[in-house]
This record gives sequence, C-alpha cells and structure tokens, in this order.
Amino acid sequence: MPSWENNVRKVVPYTPGEQPRIRDIIKLNTNENPYPPSPAVQAALAQTDSELLRKYPDPAASLLVDAIAKQYGVSSDRVFVGVGSDDVLAMSFLTFFASGRPILFPDITYSFYDVWADLFRIPYETRALDENFRITSRDYFAENGGIIFPNPNAPTGVLKPLGEVEEIVSRNRDVVVIVDEAYIDFEDGEDGAIPADSALNLIDRYENLLVVQTFSKSRSLAGMRIGYAIGSKKLIRYLNDAKYSFNSYTMNQTAIAAGVAAVEDQAYFARCLGRIKATRRWTEDALRELGFSFQDSQSNFLFVTHERVPARELFAALREAKIIVRYFDKPRIDNYLRITIGTDEEMEKLIAFLKDYLGQ
Amino acid sequence: MPSWENNVRKVVPYTPGEQPRIRDIIKLNTNENPYPPSPAVQAALAQTDSELLRKYPDPAASLLVDAIAKQYGVSSDRVFVGVGSDDVLAMSFLTFFASGRPILFPDITYSFYDVWADLFRIPYETRALDENFRITSRDYFAENGGIIFPNPNAPTGVLKPLGEVEEIVSRNRDVVVIVDEAYIDFEDGEDGAIPADSALNLIDRYENLLVVQTFSKSRSLAGMRIGYAIGSKKLIRYLNDAKYSFNSYTMNQTAIAAGVAAVEDQAYFARCLGRIKATRRWTEDALRELGFSFQDSQSNFLFVTHERVPARELFAALREAKIIVRYFDKPRIDNYLRITIGTDEEMEKLIAFLKDYLGQ
Repeated sequence: MPSWENNVRKVVPYTPGEQPRIRDIIKLNTNENPYPPSPAVQAALAQTDSELLRKYPDPAASLLVDAIAKQYGVSSDRVFVGVGSDDVLAMSFLTFFASGRPILFPDITYSFYDVWADLFRIPYETRALDENFRITSRDYFAENGGIIFPNPNAPTGVLKPLGEVEEIVSRNRDVVVIVDEAYIDFEDGEDGAIPADSALNLIDRYENLLVVQTFSKSRSLAGMRIGYAIGSKKLIRYLNDAKYSFNSYTMNQTAIAAGVAAVEDQAYFARCLGRIKATRRWTEDALRELGFSFQDSQSNFLFVTHERVPARELFAALREAKIIVRYFDKPRIDNYLRITIGTDEEMEKLIAFLKDYLGQ
Repeated sequence: MPSWENNVRKVVPYTPGEQPRIRDIIKLNTNENPYPPSPAVQAALAQTDSELLRKYPDPAASLLVDAIAKQYGVSSDRVFVGVGSDDVLAMSFLTFFASGRPILFPDITYSFYDVWADLFRIPYETRALDENFRITSRDYFAENGGIIFPNPNAPTGVLKPLGEVEEIVSRNRDVVVIVDEAYIDFEDGEDGAIPADSALNLIDRYENLLVVQTFSKSRSLAGMRIGYAIGSKKLIRYLNDAKYSFNSYTMNQTAIAAGVAAVEDQAYFARCLGRIKATRRWTEDALRELGFSFQDSQSNFLFVTHERVPARELFAALREAKIIVRYFDKPRIDNYLRITIGTDEEMEKLIAFLKDYLGQ
C-alpha cells in the first residue's frame, strides 16, 4: 500500500436501500411516496429562470424558509433548511452535541446517528427499545450530552405519544433534544394538519427542542433532497452560524423552487396522505390475516414478522417476484421486514403473492 | 445563558459574497459567469420527470459522473461529484488528511481551507505567498500530512505553471495533493480544451493527485451546486466510501440532469469562455491605463490595486454607484479589490465610472 493511503480515513461504507434500474419491479424498500409530487413542482422546474442558475443561490434559501414558516405558523427565523434531513441532522449533531458527554439514542433506530456521532467525535450511548419496540422514557432521564430519536421510530414505525415526548424534553432542559419526524405526517388524524403527536406542538414551550422533518416522504420529493428543522430562534441561529461557516451554498435553485411549490400545495399534500393512510389500513388487515404481526404503524411503512416463515426467506422470495422490501440483518430485528406503503395496486400484488407463497 | 447553550459548538460564521436583491446593480463580487448556462440546461429542467422526483436519486449520480468522465476522457471510476466544489473539497479534507501531521496551504488562499481543517481537527500550517503573490514551490517540500492549493490561486488569480505543480506532486508522493482548479478553464489557450496548466494533465502519472473543479464558474451553474474531482481510481473509491458512509443522497435529480446537459454542450462552453477571456484582455488594458496594477490573471477575475486611491475607498465608491466588487479586509491584501469579469457592457460601465472617479 503506498504510504499516502496510511493517511486516509477508513470508514464502513453505508449500503443505501437499493435503487434498482430494472423495470416492472414493485419498489417498497426505501419509504418513498408512491405518488408523484404536486404538479406545481414540475411547473416550477419548467419555469426555472436560466439567468438565476448562473448565480449562487440565496444561502439562506429564504423563499423556501418563508414558505415552510408560513405553512407551520412560525416566524422565518425559526426554520432551517438543508439538503435532505440527513444534512439537517448531521449539522444538528455537529452544532448541538459538543459537550463531550455522551448523547443518547435508541439501540434500534435510524442507522446514521452513530455514523454522525463518530464523524464528529461525539460520544454516545444507546438505550434498548422494550420488547414491543417502544422507547422507554426513563432511559433518557439520566445525565447526557443531548438526545435524539425518531418519532415514529425507524425502522419500527412505532409512535411515541406527545406526553411522553414532552416528559423527555422537559427533564432534559440543559441539553438539546432533537425529534426526528421524517414520518410524522402519516399519523392518523386530519390529513395534512400538524399531527397530534408531533413535537411541533411543543416548540413554543421548549427552547431546547428541535424538530426535524423532510420533504422526502410525505411531500414526494426524495429526489430533490429537502429537509428542515423548526425550533427556537436561538437553535436556528446556531444552526445557520454553523452552516454558513462550513458551506454557505447548499440548497440549489431548483430545490428551493420545488420546495416552495410543494409546501404551498396543501390540498394535494392532504389528499396523498389520505390515500396512503387508507392503503396502510387495509394492508395491515390483510397482512394480519396472513399470519404477520407488527406494532401499530403511524408511518408510511410496516415492520412485520411472520408467525412461521423467516423474514430472510420471505425477503428472498419477494425479491424473486420482483417485489423489493427492506431487510436488516441486525440483532433483534433480523426476523422482520420493512415494507413501504405503495399504491393500492402495488399492495394488492404484494398481498396476492404472499397469499400464494404462504399457501393460503 | 441556558445551560444547553454551553454544549453548542461556537463558530465564526463566514460572510458569503453578497447576493443583493436590488435591481440594476452590476454584480462583480462572486466570480459568477456573466452568461447563462447552455439552453440545454433549461430544457433538461423543463423535462424533469415528476415520477423521478418522488424517488431517491441515484446515490452514485452515475449519469453525471459518466458525462464528466466522457468529457475528460477518463473512466467513470475516476470521477467523484458533490454539491459544489465546497462539498467535494470538504469531503476530500475529511477523507485524505487524516494523518495527524499538519497539512500545508498558502497564507492567502480560498478562505474555507482553514475552516474545514478546524472542522475535522486536521492540523495545518500556511506558507506565505511571495511578494508577487506566487506560491513558492520549495515551501511545500517539507514533511506534511497533505497539500492543497488553488490553481489559479484565489483571490489573486495567479496561475502556477504545470511544471511547478508537478514538482510539488512528485516530491510529495506519500501524501495526497489536491489542486483546486475552480478557475482553470479561464486560462488562455484553446477555448474549452483541457488547459495547458491543468493538473488533469498529470493524473495518469500520480496516484496521489486529486484535481477538483466546479460547474459554478466556467459552466455558469453556480445556482445548481455541482462540483467534481478527478483522480486515480483509488482516490475516488476512498471518497465514495466516505460519502456513502455519511450521507448517501446529496446530488438531487435536477442537479444531475442540469449537469449532464451543461457538460455535453461543449460548443457553448467554449464560446462563453472565449468571450470572457476577450473581455478580460481589454479590461486589463483599460485598468492599467487608469493606474491599476495586478498580476496576470488566468481566471475570471482581476485582483487589482491602485497606485493612488486606497482599495477600501474605491470599494465604497463603486458600491455607491451600484457596482459591487469584493474587498477582503485581511493582512497583505487589504489594498486590493477582486473584480469579476462580467459582460463587455458591465465592464465598460465599470471603466467609465472609474475614469470619472479617478478624474482621468
């Protein structure tokens, strides 16, 4: 090995969920929205002013920040945007978890938390989910350097009620608590309204609470890489200071334009959410009938295990049938499949295949 | 101050070059291209498939990587892309400068190098430019943990001849040497061909050489945030491993599509470069006549000082006249202005104002 290679940072590369190029597959592996974004998005892209493209984008992405702020009824200085919620979360780790004390997050959770912690040399400890994959609140009452958890959690889909979220926040006022709500819009309730258990309902009361959401799931824009955080003015200012100091221009002009168009089409947003929740309901019933069990999901995926057939075998059989779901070969969850809620037609094909395969 | 604020990482926020919203200004402060991108870019955006937007982008951005590889006559496994060259450079710092020994770069140079070094806790030392703002090669022959410099350098615009670049690379085969060529396409010579002094001419000979370029200047796409690196297969593999491990999906669908369209329109690229170089030539003559001096610029900006009037005063007077240039209040360069090459019309207005202001 040439000696320059000794200086190279060695990492364990992450394997993203497959984006297979073959046609005719049913892709239920990366929790994308089965419906395209609002038609207003395509119109916004078609109208992109070429003259704008030659210039650097507004580093504050003000048009998008303002549109999100308006939608959520907060002032613009309480909104931060980034290149997908991964970018927002990574920047939040860097900015808020600098105490040197270990941060806390669940043992089964979004797989990038430990990666960012390692990247920024933030010590961390994980806390085990209970046997029903629930986050145990009292695990997070001990001294720590910060807290992060997804709600609903991934890949379990399990939602923590708002009262329990608040208890964690209120008992940790000396650190920043981040609630990663990539999937919260899929919670049952009025389609498109702020969900009952979203920590957005708490942000006026807790200056140390940051809520992170994304356009990748509920707003059908995974391809555009748009995430955002809402919190107190102070938190947002710290995030912006950090961002400007490392890379000022992250959101490109089209992401800003597409994001504005998507967030402004509230009717379309609500309609798609309604369809996905309805599909989830009947899919849950059908899977239960086939011998699957799972915790109640308030997300756009189901995390299921079968009473008889190992998940690994089902994963392979589904793949053979061109139905791609997600399997994690990790302790405690290696007999589960994560299945994204697709269209009715896609889920009907999934159920039909499973019926046949399971001999029912 | 609430105690959670003690945990916050404190940074010195970078002040990006202004993106003023007022109309009728002549904006010569951020080295943007005065011409819009190829019309093919707008067409590509207008044709964006809405269905694609709902899905995560190809994490490898293969279409764009392939287009760049083809343009530069290298295989695709020798090209890495990112969200502007800032993203590519930051990822390169993280990946290649992990030895613990200090990296080296010039004292007057791109202002993010020390920021990224601090961010990733990479020790660094700077080496002073000589009195003509040239990089002194022998300063880089000492033991080090890696080397980076822009060529042409920023904000000086001074180009280092290829032979000298090669000497630095060849004497540092035990570390990675990064040549940051944001402005190299503006070098005199055949418009649109690989410039004579680009380190791209060396990559087949040095496995430890990484060349970073951008679509923000010569390809008129600052608004789309596209940068790339070309080097040996090994370097590119290490970069991709690092990228995938932290944030797999960074380039959005439209950046990929716009980048492909831009890089494929070679005729347009060459034409714009020709125009900018021609404008630079006559602008240099006109400025010299007005009492300005500067090193020969092989970039799309001039770094000028006046024989009589302080730069700070000129900066303010130009601003008053709605002509925005860049002034750096830093040691050694605080009597200089960095002036981007705009259109002929813009530069004529600049010269007319200066003539009048300087009483000539």
